[in-house]
Amino acid sequence: MEQARKRIPRDPEDDYTRDAAESRQAFVAETTGAKLEHVSSYSFDPAILQGNVENFTGVAQVPIGFAGPLLVDGEHAQGEFYVPLATAEGTLVASYNRGMRLLYEAGGVKTTVLDDRMQRAPAFLFADAREARAFADWIDERFDDIREAAEATTRSGKLQDIDKYSASRILFCRFNFTTGDAAGQNLTGKATQAACDWIKENYDGALEHHFLESNFATDKKSSQVNILRTRGKRVVAEATIPRDLIKELMHAEVDMLWRARLVSNLGGFMAGVNNNGAHSANGITAMFIATGQDVANVAESSAALNFSEVLPNGDYYVSITIPSLIVATYGGGTGLATQRECLEALGCYGKGKVMKLAEIVAATVLCGELSLGSAIVAEQWVDAHDLHGRNRP
Amino acid sequence: MEQARKRIPRDPEDDYTRDAAESRQAFVAETTGAKLEHVSSYSFDPAILQGNVENFTGVAQVPIGFAGPLLVDGEHAQGEFYVPLATAEGTLVASYNRGMRLLYEAGGVKTTVLDDRMQRAPAFLFADAREARAFADWIDERFDDIREAAEATTRSGKLQDIDKYSASRILFCRFNFTTGDAAGQNLTGKATQAACDWIKENYDGALEHHFLESNFATDKKSSQVNILRTRGKRVVAEATIPRDLIKELMHAEVDMLWRARLVSNLGGFMAGVNNNGAHSANGITAMFIATGQDVANVAESSAALNFSEVLPNGDYYVSITIPSLIVATYGGGTGLATQRECLEALGCYGKGKVMKLAEIVAATVLCGELSLGSAIVAEQWVDAHDLHGRNRP
Amino acid sequence: MEQARKRIPRDPEDDYTRDAAESRQAFVAETTGAKLEHVSSYSFDPAILQGNVENFTGVAQVPIGFAGPLLVDGEHAQGEFYVPLATAEGTLVASYNRGMRLLYEAGGVKTTVLDDRMQRAPAFLFADAREARAFADWIDERFDDIREAAEATTRSGKLQDIDKYSASRILFCRFNFTTGDAAGQNLTGKATQAACDWIKENYDGALEHHFLESNFATDKKSSQVNILRTRGKRVVAEATIPRDLIKELMHAEVDMLWRARLVSNLGGFMAGVNNNGAHSANGITAMFIATGQDVANVAESSAALNFSEVLPNGDYYVSITIPSLIVATYGGGTGLATQRECLEALGCYGKGKVMKLAEIVAATVLCGELSLGSAIVAEQWVDAHDLHGRNRP
Amino acid sequence: MEQARKRIPRDPEDDYTRDAAESRQAFVAETTGAKLEHVSSYSFDPAILQGNVENFTGVAQVPIGFAGPLLVDGEHAQGEFYVPLATAEGTLVASYNRGMRLLYEAGGVKTTVLDDRMQRAPAFLFADAREARAFADWIDERFDDIREAAEATTRSGKLQDIDKYSASRILFCRFNFTTGDAAGQNLTGKATQAACDWIKENYDGALEHHFLESNFATDKKSSQVNILRTRGKRVVAEATIPRDLIKELMHAEVDMLWRARLVSNLGGFMAGVNNNGAHSANGITAMFIATGQDVANVAESSAALNFSEVLPNGDYYVSITIPSLIVATYGGGTGLATQRECLEALGCYGKGKVMKLAEIVAATVLCGELSLGSAIVAEQWVDAHDLHGRNRP
Repeated sequence: MEQARKRIPRDPEDDYTRDAAESRQAFVAETTGAKLEHVSSYSFDPAILQGNVENFTGVAQVPIGFAGPLLVDGEHAQGEFYVPLATAEGTLVASYNRGMRLLYEAGGVKTTVLDDRMQRAPAFLFADAREARAFADWIDERFDDIREAAEATTRSGKLQDIDKYSASRILFCRFNFTTGDAAGQNLTGKATQAACDWIKENYDGALEHHFLESNFATDKKSSQVNILRTRGKRVVAEATIPRDLIKELMHAEVDMLWRARLVSNLGGFMAGVNNNGAHSANGITAMFIATGQDVANVAESSAALNFSEVLPNGDYYVSITIPSLIVATYGGGTGLATQRECLEALGCYGKGKVMKLAEIVAATVLCGELSLGSAIVAEQWVDAHDLHGRNRP
Repeated sequence: MEQARKRIPRDPEDDYTRDAAESRQAFVAETTGAKLEHVSSYSFDPAILQGNVENFTGVAQVPIGFAGPLLVDGEHAQGEFYVPLATAEGTLVASYNRGMRLLYEAGGVKTTVLDDRMQRAPAFLFADAREARAFADWIDERFDDIREAAEATTRSGKLQDIDKYSASRILFCRFNFTTGDAAGQNLTGKATQAACDWIKENYDGALEHHFLESNFATDKKSSQVNILRTRGKRVVAEATIPRDLIKELMHAEVDMLWRARLVSNLGGFMAGVNNNGAHSANGITAMFIATGQDVANVAESSAALNFSEVLPNGDYYVSITIPSLIVATYGGGTGLATQRECLEALGCYGKGKVMKLAEIVAATVLCGELSLGSAIVAEQWVDAHDLHGRNRP
Repeated sequence: MEQARKRIPRDPEDDYTRDAAESRQAFVAETTGAKLEHVSSYSFDPAILQGNVENFTGVAQVPIGFAGPLLVDGEHAQGEFYVPLATAEGTLVASYNRGMRLLYEAGGVKTTVLDDRMQRAPAFLFADAREARAFADWIDERFDDIREAAEATTRSGKLQDIDKYSASRILFCRFNFTTGDAAGQNLTGKATQAACDWIKENYDGALEHHFLESNFATDKKSSQVNILRTRGKRVVAEATIPRDLIKELMHAEVDMLWRARLVSNLGGFMAGVNNNGAHSANGITAMFIATGQDVANVAESSAALNFSEVLPNGDYYVSITIPSLIVATYGGGTGLATQRECLEALGCYGKGKVMKLAEIVAATVLCGELSLGSAIVAEQWVDAHDLHGRNRP
Repeated sequence: MEQARKRIPRDPEDDYTRDAAESRQAFVAETTGAKLEHVSSYSFDPAILQGNVENFTGVAQVPIGFAGPLLVDGEHAQGEFYVPLATAEGTLVASYNRGMRLLYEAGGVKTTVLDDRMQRAPAFLFADAREARAFADWIDERFDDIREAAEATTRSGKLQDIDKYSASRILFCRFNFTTGDAAGQNLTGKATQAACDWIKENYDGALEHHFLESNFATDKKSSQVNILRTRGKRVVAEATIPRDLIKELMHAEVDMLWRARLVSNLGGFMAGVNNNGAHSANGITAMFIATGQDVANVAESSAALNFSEVLPNGDYYVSITIPSLIVATYGGGTGLATQRECLEALGCYGKGKVMKLAEIVAATVLCGELSLGSAIVAEQWVDAHDLHGRNRP
């Protein structure tokens, strides 16, 4: 089996050209038999992709539907928005749209960003637990120096604090940064490495070893620590919906919605979910693809805390808290061709916009929660998928 | 604020046309000021999108880089593959490629699908716990009838069994189906609804209420129950790598890789992660976007179990188990223009291919685990991102 | 420091005598300076302790208070019970007593045992995942033989089924037994070892290694798998309490109790608890000490699922589900002097009583949930501890 | 069924007398038919029980075996200890004793207390998330005042800091105290209530409601937040054991012990345990009963983090971290008759001893981990229980 390993062609001079992409398209066609006709149909100059992808060969064309108007009463997002959702799942856009209508009629979604922190989590190993404890104290004493070393590597990253978790002869640290409009994983990694270098040079105790990451960040993974201590933005969307409006628009009784919520809460708790809500990942993923986010962060961004109450007057208070929403309006994929356009459609392209985007995402998610919740209760769920989803199999 | 709500235009006759899309592009441009030049540049006939998206307006163009060859020794995937990865995160393709080279030289990745089941999880409510228990027994007795009612609604869905979890006066059920080459969420929902209808008609006890879903499935959410009991495919990728090869290709010592693994295991356990590995979500997400999967399923598909050992001879055994990998080669977005081409490049388009795709995904993930793990240990991680990632902020 | 290691004296002829105990009391007095006057005051013949403790030196005298009457409407426990609670925590007995009065007036507690299974969880290791999968199939085929081998070692243990969980090249099994009136950890261990011996002899594939336990049982540890799949008894206690009765007896409004419940549910979910209720461990521990249970099983027995609802008429439905309650009325410490008397006071000593005991424990727990919940809401909690608890510091 | 409810007799004058206890013994005998001969055999004056129990009727006599010498190299515990273990589980004392011998020969157990904090966790509710966020800021600003209000109620409690966790329109706070030699739940509750009273009076924003506890403490429950952020003492026990010593004393190969550890780690992670070690609850519970701890705290104290490594020279480094060990040497049950004697046998009675006790508990737990781990690997486990445990069923 192991004859010559056929490498994917690269152009050592400049690999970000249509020619280089074509040579790879030809290579794929030759080795696999697959013609990449549509993959090859992209509308931008590959030169913009440096830093975004290697071995660029073409594009995935993911359908975008817009939903809206979404009425947001945020501190950063104010007014009506039309939300681009990139998805191939039938019903998704229609469902979010339906929820947006309900919350529009209810007066809009109030949104609040509660916290903001991105981290890298090095682990430091010592001869025994006492040395690890002494090191933890030293970290506190020299925090200003450590911050200076870290921030020297970045314009937008600011080291806020260092969370410390100890076990055995190891100190796990979460270096918590704010990262401006970037998602910030890379700048956080670089700044934390610089901090670690400074620590290695300056710590007068015996540091046996350190690893720059220790599964405590926890990048691209759901975790309780991120639910508790935030990763990216911690954002809340909330609304109060008149009882009759739910009945009129969603054909669902508040009391039944509420009972379904109680049962879901118990089910989710027993199942060990990271999200006691309905399906926040759907809206988040579709917005992430459309707006050039790091879509793999759906792993942690899909955690959510639903808290709802039937008010004494019978109206329905609903809220969703997303404790680890990782978004950017600068860097990563946000400047690419279609991604930038979608950010512009939300008024969220560029500097100073990331909180606004976080609020719009959270408001969108809340609309989806109500729409799916109502559909389950009104027993319209499967019918909706029969109507909008292809349901081929 | 609440003047007239401006609705997104739809064409009641046929909404899946270039004209309909253009009217929405114009609407977005007018209401938001954003020109959707690139979003509008798609290469296929919108007619194919029925059942995949509503309010179709254009596409997200997500860059695809190919990595490979990936050498797979599976039961369904055999030989060399070039893997399309849709991403805007610099370094990702290069990193997976590097891992693929290592495992190619090591003789390839062995892959095994251990289990296959997709579920919908209705909850049944009763007057008290005893009635819930009696109902659970009745479900067992009438399983054949329930299966018949469920399977009448679908060609490819087969009800395997019903997992039952009880608490209070509620019985939570997981109806476990195999779903052929489809991911199967929709067919599972429809079949389970039919089963519930049959149950309501035929159960002679007093069923107070039921909900078709109870947060026990747990669709679009990470959960312990899915890690334990499988959702989608449960698939393992494993390999044994000669000690010297790791040193030569990855500039990392096995002993240090191993120690980093131990520390990560502890860190992850303390942090409460759903994945004790490195970053499976990266490879999974990039493949999901490229091949038309339901990308929101990254929420549960990103759970992973890394198990590794240094063998007596010093070689390194590594494995990754993905307990809830949700993939399809039929239905959903798999038939769209670029998505189908990418599946074809893997030899995975259409019927009878879903296990093959699951194996290729798992093998890809394992390559990424080794690449990132080695980079952290060799302290090349940040440098690699400086080289390949734009790292603008 | 490491001079001669002074061993605790033992009598090789018969170590379960007052003389042997006295020689150890003298040894402790001599080496530590502590006189064990009260520890030495036990009222039974040490000969009964064989199989219960080694190096017997005396007893802990743990105060017992009785609470009751507890009115139970169970399938095994029927009528009024006075419950022995061994504790040194002021307020505990008073609080449970208060809850018992409330539920007495409300008509009693309905109890139901939903499931019964005790397990040992061996892990089987193979060369690769495929062999592990083949072994899993073989286990199913040969289940009857395996059961026969297991049951040959025990009179009361019955192997119900084997739960299988796979990852990497390992198959984790939960051998689920019913164990009569014993808690059953020992008999389960012995029977599972016999089953493993039979497997080793008869499996024609290549079994690399096995371990009799793999942290999947999960003995003396809380775990999601036990919450989902039961360990010991899975038992529910439920009641409906008239709205006015809560007001009258607990000085608490149902609506406030209910809101506190919602907030606790969210708090617990975010905190990552194994119990969304209030303090089941208090009642369980006190009953376990009094009745000779293996008190270390509080680790898993303290998991609980609270589900409550305000009914349309304003009454309050409350329930607690204990998914892994480990109790015995035979074997272990149940036959010791005071322990047996406490079981007799409950009518639970000896054969055929274990379900009754499980029901009484669950009913007791429910009373405590309501008492503490009400106290928090009525802001009597700290005052109660000031009254009943010494609160010395 | 609901005829007259027969109340347990109480003496309104003085309920802590032998007479009062006898009247209850008679009541129990009369209503249940059970004679409490041994329960009635206690050796102390009931007057000492005020604040420890209500409705005192007698005692549970729990057998105590001593294990040792345990060689501890702590910061607070130094030298050899003989450890009282109150249990009715055969093999337990022998097993801990065996582990103590191993670690004695290996040079003893190094112990370190990493952290110390006891908490009460009120929740504060507001009209919306923004008000909750503003309140969080205010808490920081007025921390000194809040501390003063809290500490005014207690001599030994010191408010260290307030952890804040937000979701929806609720702020969950963990008020973290050091509590001297007391476990501190009561004083923490009282001090936090005083702090809440001060807050209610002084907060100029609109606080809708607050609850003194919100399931975030998480008293008597295992939780991830306690594993991460400590409850009670966070204590480590560690040791390095020569390879040959394990072979000689435990008849186990380090390599096999190590492999069992890896498999257990994976099993536990998949099972969702709160403890990746073996059985810390056994030693902790037995010491808690013997020394007058609040035994219900086994629920959280049983969480543990095992971290081990085979060193380059083949020796075995082992450690256990107990992140939420709740112990006291003052208050609660520590001053009772037998309990005090057991504390004295450890040199741990009274003020200034609580860290010493925490270290001895952790060292004991580590010994038990090695003993059970070795027994499983050497396949002596079931045999040991056959020898020492009665194994009646």
